[in-house]
Formats: sequence, C-alpha cells, structure tokens
Amino acid sequence: MHPYFRAALCLAACGALWLTTPAPAAADEGMWLFNHPPLKLLKEKYGFDKPPTWYEHVQKSCVRFPGRSGSFISADGLVMTNHHVGLGAIKKLSSEKNDYVKNGFYAKTRAEELKAEGLELLCLQDIVDVTKEVQDAVDPKKSGDEAFQARRAAIAKIEKESQAKTGLYSSVTTLYQGARYHLYRYKRYTDVRLVFAPEQQIAFYGGDADNFAYPRYDLDCTFFRVYEKGKPAKVEHHLKWSKAGAKDNELVFVAGHPGRTDRLTTVAELEYLRDIGYPFLLQRFYRLEVLYSVYSGMGEEQERQAKDLLFGVANSRKAIEGELAGLLDPGVMAAKKAYEEKIRKAVADSPDLKDLAGAWDAIAKSQKVRAANIKRHAMLEQGAGFNTTLFTYARALVRAADEFAKPNEKRLSEFGEANKKRLEQQLFAEQPIYEELEIAKLANSLTFLVEVLGAKDKLVQQVLAGKSPAVRAAQLVKGSSLAKAEERKRLYEGGKDAVAKSDDTLIQLAQLVDQESRAVRKTLESQVTEVKEQAFSKIAKAKFAVEAGAETYPDATFTLRLSFGTVKGYEEGGKKIPFETTFGGLFKYAKEKKFKGVFELPKRWLERSARLDPTAPFNFVCTTDIIGGNSGSPVINADGEVVGLIFDGNIQSLVWAFLFTDEQARSVAVHSRGIVEALRGIYAADALADEIVGSK
Amino acid sequence: MHPYFRAALCLAACGALWLTTPAPAAADEGMWLFNHPPLKLLKEKYGFDKPPTWYEHVQKSCVRFPGRSGSFISADGLVMTNHHVGLGAIKKLSSEKNDYVKNGFYAKTRAEELKAEGLELLCLQDIVDVTKEVQDAVDPKKSGDEAFQARRAAIAKIEKESQAKTGLYSSVTTLYQGARYHLYRYKRYTDVRLVFAPEQQIAFYGGDADNFAYPRYDLDCTFFRVYEKGKPAKVEHHLKWSKAGAKDNELVFVAGHPGRTDRLTTVAELEYLRDIGYPFLLQRFYRLEVLYSVYSGMGEEQERQAKDLLFGVANSRKAIEGELAGLLDPGVMAAKKAYEEKIRKAVADSPDLKDLAGAWDAIAKSQKVRAANIKRHAMLEQGAGFNTTLFTYARALVRAADEFAKPNEKRLSEFGEANKKRLEQQLFAEQPIYEELEIAKLANSLTFLVEVLGAKDKLVQQVLAGKSPAVRAAQLVKGSSLAKAEERKRLYEGGKDAVAKSDDTLIQLAQLVDQESRAVRKTLESQVTEVKEQAFSKIAKAKFAVEAGAETYPDATFTLRLSFGTVKGYEEGGKKIPFETTFGGLFKYAKEKKFKGVFELPKRWLERSARLDPTAPFNFVCTTDIIGGNSGSPVINADGEVVGLIFDGNIQSLVWAFLFTDEQARSVAVHSRGIVEALRGIYAADALADEIVGSK
Repeated sequence: MHPYFRAALCLAACGALWLTTPAPAAADEGMWLFNHPPLKLLKEKYGFDKPPTWYEHVQKSCVRFPGRSGSFISADGLVMTNHHVGLGAIKKLSSEKNDYVKNGFYAKTRAEELKAEGLELLCLQDIVDVTKEVQDAVDPKKSGDEAFQARRAAIAKIEKESQAKTGLYSSVTTLYQGARYHLYRYKRYTDVRLVFAPEQQIAFYGGDADNFAYPRYDLDCTFFRVYEKGKPAKVEHHLKWSKAGAKDNELVFVAGHPGRTDRLTTVAELEYLRDIGYPFLLQRFYRLEVLYSVYSGMGEEQERQAKDLLFGVANSRKAIEGELAGLLDPGVMAAKKAYEEKIRKAVADSPDLKDLAGAWDAIAKSQKVRAANIKRHAMLEQGAGFNTTLFTYARALVRAADEFAKPNEKRLSEFGEANKKRLEQQLFAEQPIYEELEIAKLANSLTFLVEVLGAKDKLVQQVLAGKSPAVRAAQLVKGSSLAKAEERKRLYEGGKDAVAKSDDTLIQLAQLVDQESRAVRKTLESQVTEVKEQAFSKIAKAKFAVEAGAETYPDATFTLRLSFGTVKGYEEGGKKIPFETTFGGLFKYAKEKKFKGVFELPKRWLERSARLDPTAPFNFVCTTDIIGGNSGSPVINADGEVVGLIFDGNIQSLVWAFLFTDEQARSVAVHSRGIVEALRGIYAADALADEIVGSK
Repeated sequence: MHPYFRAALCLAACGALWLTTPAPAAADEGMWLFNHPPLKLLKEKYGFDKPPTWYEHVQKSCVRFPGRSGSFISADGLVMTNHHVGLGAIKKLSSEKNDYVKNGFYAKTRAEELKAEGLELLCLQDIVDVTKEVQDAVDPKKSGDEAFQARRAAIAKIEKESQAKTGLYSSVTTLYQGARYHLYRYKRYTDVRLVFAPEQQIAFYGGDADNFAYPRYDLDCTFFRVYEKGKPAKVEHHLKWSKAGAKDNELVFVAGHPGRTDRLTTVAELEYLRDIGYPFLLQRFYRLEVLYSVYSGMGEEQERQAKDLLFGVANSRKAIEGELAGLLDPGVMAAKKAYEEKIRKAVADSPDLKDLAGAWDAIAKSQKVRAANIKRHAMLEQGAGFNTTLFTYARALVRAADEFAKPNEKRLSEFGEANKKRLEQQLFAEQPIYEELEIAKLANSLTFLVEVLGAKDKLVQQVLAGKSPAVRAAQLVKGSSLAKAEERKRLYEGGKDAVAKSDDTLIQLAQLVDQESRAVRKTLESQVTEVKEQAFSKIAKAKFAVEAGAETYPDATFTLRLSFGTVKGYEEGGKKIPFETTFGGLFKYAKEKKFKGVFELPKRWLERSARLDPTAPFNFVCTTDIIGGNSGSPVINADGEVVGLIFDGNIQSLVWAFLFTDEQARSVAVHSRGIVEALRGIYAADALADEIVGSK
C-alpha cells in the first residue's frame, strides 16, 4: 500500500449502487483532523468519550515516513511500520552479498542496528489554524499568478517564522482544497536505524496477485529505531502493546497519513481524472512496469536492483486502475453529480450564497488548462522524461543554486527555508546507483519524451542532441559524477557559481530544461491550483451553510489523521469472510498454491512452522477509513494500545478514493499477536518481541 | 520471433552511422521472390549457379504457418518449425493435467501424434504475375473508395477463378507497395498433428531477457506432421538433412515468410510510424503485457492459460521498441531521407518522369488521414477495444452472414470465396476458452476503449450499456455461448436469419459496432491504402528508371522469400562473438545464472546432461536477411540440405526493418546438429531423429 494504494479491477464493488451521498460523514467514515476529532459521532455511536490527552498521546506517538506512516512502540524510540514502507531503505542497505530484502534482517543487539541513510521521520507536535493569515495575504481582486505568488509568499513566511521560533520543521497544509490552512510543526528524526525486517517473500506474500485482496497472509512489518546524538532516542510518547490484539466487533482507531482522496473534488475534476489524468498516468505506469520487469528478468542481481521500483510501480498501477474503475462506475459518478447539484441548487436558491455560484464553473474551466498542459508538466516538471535518480539530484542542485539566492517568499515552495535541512539530508545521503539500470531507465524515458512531446519539439531535439534516446542516455549517465555524494555536496555548497561551471552532463540537462519546466509549472499553479483554492474557499462556505452543524473532515493530504471503525468480516458472493486469518490458514493456502512463485514460503517458515500456534491470528480487517499513505499506521483500541498494523485495503475499498462505504470495503492489517508470534517462533527475535510487548 | 520479431533497445547498433543507402541491394541483402531470385548477385559474389529446379525444390519444401514459416523434412510429411511457432497449438492441446508447454511432448508412434485443431499449413505451388489485370481494372481517373473497390473486386475475381480452376488456395499479393501484383497458389494442409515439442523452458531459454540476444542456447524447435485422408501425407518435395550442419563461412540460404519491412516506405510514412503509429502500438502492448503478467501471477493454472499470450505480446513489444529505436536513430532517418531526395530529384530533373512527382506528397497527405483515424480503427476494426476470443468469433459470424450474401467481388477481402474454407476451419475448430481470462481481457480492453475514444463517445456508451467496464465484461462473457464450436457452427450455417435472431451477448456487441467499424475501415482503405497503391505504381516506375538494371526485391509481405548469406560471428565491444554456441556453453551459462527463473533448466536436461557432447553446436548466427515471420524458416546449404532452423535475430538486426547492414546484425538459428543431439541425448527420440536424418 503505497502513496497510491487504493485499487484494482473490482467486479463486486463496482456493481453496487452507492446509496450514500458523499457528505456529511456517515457510518465509520472520515479521516479526521487531530485538532477537530469527531467527538460527537464517537460518543453517539460508540459511547467513546476520552479527554484531549488521549488524542495528544496518540498524535505524538505517530511518525510520518516519506509519504507513509509509522508509530513509536517503545520508550527507546522503536518504530513500527510496514515492510513495504521500509523497503527502499532496506534495499539501500543491501548489496549483492547481503540481500536483506530477500533474506530479511535482525539486529540482535543495538550495535548491529543499521543506519538508513537519507531516511527522515517526522513527529507532529502541534497544529495552528493560519487560514486568516493566508487568505488575508491574497487581494480578493487578484487572480492567477499574482494571487498564487502572494499566497505562497504568505505560507513561506509563516513556515520560516514558525521554524525560527520553535526549531521545529514547520509546514502549512492546505485543507478542504483551499478553504482552510493549518500550520503543522514536526520534530525531525534523521538518524533512523533498521532493527528488523522479514523476508520480502512473507512480507508481501501473494505478491501482486494478492495485493488489495483478502483473506491475506502477510507479515508486512518492519522495525526501525530513531537515534539522537548517537543513542536511542528517549521518546515522550509511545503506544503500548495490546496482549489480546484486535477482537471481533471491537472499536478501533487508525492514526496515520492518508495521502489523497477526492471526496470533495468537483465533478469537473473527476471527469478530468477519468478522461485525461488517469489514462495518462496508467500509460506511464504500464510502461515503467514492463521496463522494471524486463530489467529484473535479466538476472538475480538486476532483480535485486529493481525490486522496489517494480513493486512500487505495480502497486501504484493497480491502485490507479482501481480508482479509474471507480470513476467508470456510473453509480459512483451519479452520486457525485447528485450531491454537487444539491449544493449548487441550494446556492442558487439562497440570496446570501449567490456570490459563490461561479466557483464550480471556474474549476471546470481550469480543468481545460490542466488537460492541455498535463503531459508537458509530467514529462518536464515531474521528470517523467528524465527517469534517473541522477536527474533528480541534478534538478535539485540546479534549482537550489537559483532558489536559495532569492528571498524566502519568492522561492519555489520546496525550497522554502523550512525545507532546507530536509533537502540537504536527502542530497547528501549515500545511495547506491546502478549505472546499467539508470541507463535503461533514462533511455526508456527519453523515448517516452519523444513520443509524448513529439520528435519535432525543439526542446526534445535539444535534449537528444542529435542522438537516439538510447545513445544519449548512455552518454548522459556516463558523463555524470552525481552518483557520488561528495560531488553533490561540492556543487551544492559551491552554489550558483559551481553549478554554472559544472560540465556534468546531468547538470547541463537540468539547466537546459529548467526554463520550460518552470513555465509549465507556473501555468498549472496560477491557472489551476490557485483557481481551485479560491473556488474552494467559496464552495466550503456554501457547504458549511448547507450542512450547518455537521462534523466534517477534509480530503486526505498526507498529514496526520484519525479514523475509527469496527473489527469485522464481511460477505462476498454469498460467502462469509471472517475478520481474521491464522498461521494455520497461511500454510493451507500456500499448499493450495503449490508453494510456487509469489506463493513460495521463505525457507525458515517451512522449517520452523511447528513453532507457530496455527490458531494464532495473522491478518485481520476493520472498517476504518484509510487510503494510500496510511501504510504503516498502527491500529489501536480504545485504550490506545496497538492491536494491529495497517498494510492494505481490500479490493472493495478502492472506491474510498471518492466515496466511503463499509458494506464490503475493509482496511487490512497485520494482527498484533501475529507479529509477536512470528518474531518469537520464526525469527527467534525474543529481545525485540520483549521490547514490543513491554516485558523488558 | 513473432510476426513482429525485430527488436529491442540497442545501444551498439543505434549508435552506428548507416553508410549504406536503402537500395539497390548490397552485400547479402534481400528477401527475394522465388520467381525473381538474385541470380546475378549469387553468381558474382558466391559463384552459386543452380538451375531453376533447385529453386522449385526449395519452394515446394517450404510451408507457411499462420504468419510464420516451416519446412518439410521427410517424405512422410514431417514438418519442422520453431517451438514458439507451434506454441499456440501446443497450448490448445494442453490441459491443467497434461501441460505440454511446460513438460514437452513426444509421440513415440504415429498413433500418438495429436491433431492440432484449426491449424492450417500452406505450401506454395506457383506464382503468376497479375499486375496488368489488377491495374487495368482501376480507371486511372478514379480515386478513393471507387478505385479501392474496383481493385479489390479485380483481385477477388482473380482469386476465385484461380481457385475454381486449380483447386488450390489462391491469394493475390501486393508487392512493391502496389507496383506489382502476384497471384500465389497454395496447397492446403488442414490435418496437422503434433509430433514433438521440448519443454518451453529450453525452447525459450533465457526468456524475455535473452530474446533478441546472442550468444543463445535455445532448442526452439517443434515437429508436426501433415496428414491426408487420415494418413501421413506423402509429400513430393522435402529438404534433406545435412550431417555436418552449418559451418563457419559457409554460404547459406533461408526460405521463409518474412512479415513486414519498411525499406521502400516513404519518409512521410516512417514519420507517421515514429510519431503516431508505434507510440500507440506500444501503449497497447505495455498495457497487455501487464495484464497477462498479472493474470499469470495469480497461480500456476492461470500462468498456463496466459503463457502464450504473454510471450506473444512481450515479443511484439520488444520488437516494436526496437523498431522505434531505429526510427529515433538520426542516422537511419537521414539515410532514408537522402535516398528519397535522390529519387525525387531525378524525377524532378527528368521530363519523362515528371508526372510521377506528386506521388510522395499524395502519400504524405494520406498519412494525416491515417493519424486521425488510427485509434478508432484499432479499437473498433482491429478489436483492441474488445479483446476476447469470443468477440473474434462473433465478428466473424456477423460479417460472414452479411458478406457471403453478397457477390464475391463486393465482399470484404477476407470473405472472398477463396478464403471461405480457411475461415470455416478456424471457426469450427475446438479451442479451450477460459472464462476468467476472457473476462479479465475484455474488462481491460473496454476500459482502454473508454480511455481512447472517451467516456462521452456515443458508441462507447452503447457498448457499456450504463455499466462499468468490469461489470459489462462479465455480463458479456457470461451471456455468450460462442465458446462452443457447435453453437458457432449453428449460427454460421443459419446465416443472416440465425444471426439476426441470436440473443448471444457477443453477437449483439459485434452487430452494435459493425457499422462504425466498417466506416473507419473504409476511410483508411480508400484514403490511405488506395492512395499508397496508386502512388507506389508511380514511385516504382521512378525507381526502376533511376536504378535501371539492378536486381531488386519488394518489402516483406508474409509470403515466401529467399535470403542468402554467410555463417559468421561478429565483434561487439571489442569482443569476438563466435558464430556458434555449444551444449557445454549452455551448462556453463546456466550455472553463471544460478539456474534461476528464466535460466532454470528442465529437470531432464540436468539429469541427462552427460549424454550430450559438450562440444556439439547448439545455436549459430549468419548474415541472411530476415524479419519477423521468418520464425521457423529452414537454413539450408548450397546443396539444399538443412543446416539450421531460424528462430530469432540479434539485437543489432532490429534495424533491418528499415535498412540492411551486416556489420553486427545477424539471424539466429538452432544448429541442425544441436537438434539431433538433443533429440537423441535428452529425449530418447531416436525414431524421430532417424526420420529427420533420413536413416530410416
């Protein structure tokens, strides 16, 4: 479950009629803000009524991985997340000789814990509503680029001042599509070490075939530890471990960082996604999946090099296929249209709200600009035409030299003062670069660049410099020294002058495309993003007026949210799917699948199966409202104890991107008892298990 | 090596400068017509000077598989081809219980030979030049649809009359893009039985990773036998077996059915392919490859069901990637442009040729029509939007009912009287249909249909009937009885009336799209195909005038051709690549690759390796000019004896689609000695080996 976890071709769910309207929240719906939890709903439905300290404790026990989630589970800074969240770091720590992705890893002592270079965890300390400051900075008579710049400048200022004042990493989050702005302050952990990882084969058991499926049998967990000043960090808040783990019909919570939903999104935007955005995204994913799969097929070492890339793109592809299936379900689109018409009618009928009426059309108009520019934006600004890590470095170095020379408020948002340290950490972290793989990636993406922008495009011709994509890719990769961290540091510290003098091929490429890349970004920011933020401050007003008094939550934004729900199974095709699976079930399933391919079990699991209680729970499902980005989120009970670890959603949950339903849709988690059982039985990791359950 | 075998990202070849101009033929270039072999060239370069009977004997020893090649190698109708050519038939004969694709097959006695339903082999008997008749039928003042219809009517008439007169399957082939028309008459063999197939693992050793690579170690051979009246056919011509097999520096020939080359194609058409045609084709292939790969990953049985589909699409994708890389090589395009300019200048400068000058611009203009219509044509007429075998049946039944009611000359070309028997054979042959797979294919392609033609397209909406693609696909597949051969027969024999009354979901779908599908086909036929044929009758005149006296050959057309060349290795990256590989080399290579994944060896090969001579040749390369469709072609020596079996081209040969070069580009073949060595040593198939070498 990746940034885009929501997914897959779904016969069952797509056929259902969606009787719920998108808002206000019903059933166990909602990815709630920690500063606005659904107190009323929880009390009414579950009789749950805890003091603010309960929420604060949970909030400060959570950590954000880049685009994913995790939590502290011991006072010594032990962090729990999914294996697929840690995969990138585990791969970087691996080599042809020590393949931890394949063989797993366990540090028996703290001295053996391995530092994951470049990995940063963030822990949310507090939230301040800055809506007024951001909106006041934008002259309501201004629009387009001017308004966009003013808004960004206000945000950069707030972030910089907050950071200077508190020393915490500070970031303003746009909520309700631009109707609200909250400042989030995070404690940063940059010394993060790997403690334990199982074999990928059991973490991702069933592979792509079972991704988004249920029943499941995955030990999708990994443990890290955060360090400070070379020692395990003493963290103030951490989640205790529930001995019993998740029980049928129990109220549970999920605290994590859901990435993106489109529940408030207008119909015009959904149509854009259905007609343009998703088909193009899928085109990119299919292409990449074939590339990585072919490269992996070349041999064991190539497979190791490309494993996380292949997993990532397959997962995203499946998710977007699922979302597109949702948008192509006439029932879903009809529900979205009906809801939007209801609000628009209320606006048209009310003299007080009339001023807001133009907001939907403004967004519809902006989607045409988006459609016209999205391919160029993807190829140049998102770098889909230059798919090599070396270009990512080069782009960052070229822009850092330009941007850091400007005042904070005038910079591109990612170069705001508040982001500087994080950028440096990423730039200077050592990371293995495989020349053959980088050439294959770049050759493929340069070809895609020509296909999408055309062989006659002037910039494309300059990029290729009279060579074929394959030849040019080899020349570019071989002519660059950016694989070396010290060279990146030298250029970064040398600033504009050093970058200007560099004859590095990738630096020169990044310079060549920068102007046009910035131009298309500006078009989208000023004519799409800004239009949307202005329009949504109106749409939000309309909704708050029409649905006065209802507790509401904003669309997901990769920031910390709280969901609640019930542990329970469901029915599918007339068959009852129990809420949990067991270790006994795993071995039965593996046998049915003849232990072949993605259904192979790691050697250790075959040899030590007798040490596992066959009736012990392994995975389970609950109705908590999640989405990609929630990967690694703890599932906790009413006492705030860990009862599980979110790692996926079932196929029926794909539609949560647009609408919540809990008839069949479920979150999928590793059971807390399953984790401890495997740690002790299979991995003899008793020291770690003891720390987790708190018996140490 | 498929219809599209030519291939793959190529660093070495793409960097080279193409010094040769496309024509006239140089070096060992050429896919020559059997009625116009390059007598002068062969005599001058190789001193080869054989009577017409040599060519006739080779011609009549060859057979055409659908889109591929093969040859008779015994008087009892034994046919040799590639395993990947026979794969579809082998899969149809397999079941979950008897998986011949995985485990191989050997009929120890003739009674055990298995009939491959629906497989038809054609053996070319003679060739008649009908250029005058075809061209005279088209009023030079007419153009577009009228001219196209007149041309097709003339061809249908010639074919029908020839068939009635000779009893042979008769087909007019358009050569030199429309400058020449030849009538080919074939003997049909429709009782074709499987004799021997190795495990796919060794036939396609190295899988996609090694496809188009060299050195290679593939036993890519399969043997069938043709029967007549229930007995092995006594064939008049067959190729003898060379005991020594291919030797270094030997002159060799390849007789087979190269599919498609673009050597005479104009620059405007190449630009169309580069900018529109190939990118869209790749988009389709990437999508299908992911679909089949995901489906295969679901389990062993699913893998078995989708194996040939996955292999086919991966192979085509790699080929088109390679061709596109060729078109993106500035050297290739510059050579094509220079040659075209030379001819055009000669035309402009000559008062006699002036009338021909407009031909190139006419083609350029037609490419715009092609670009504007190709996506709709692909989705509707090629059926890319309805990817299920059931639709193929439904389309054939719906159209057969309409077309066979018309006079022969007015029908769509594939329903010409001459094609009737072949169509019936394909329609009535039993073939396993896997419901789950068909639903997955159709759901995926209906989604693609919406993506490409748009959710607002009226026909798309009618096709989906208010349902999501996934739900609609399940409904369509489950509502059809076309999986049953007897139902197909009933509808076919019932004609228009039976089809009109049918409530079969797929029949109704085929009816629904038929009108629009025919319309877009007509647009392309009248405004692109016809324009090209008229233009090329002019361009050919120009070329024959400018290059008077040179022996020439037309672009490949899936019809029988003769190539010649030399058995020899090449240099790559300063390293000598010997012309042949050995069995010893195979085991060494497998060990290097740790016997993993696509480098796994079948159990038998591991157990019986000692029975093989490690120095015996396994695969080899030669400079013969081939392309996809040549798969299964025999390689023969000057005495007409089999010395090998073509199964691939190396990566450097990909550019042969557009230009011939023999610096590094090579055909790749199984060595005749390798085949016999493996048959005896691994498979204990001595009876078959005896028949092949003629010692029986």
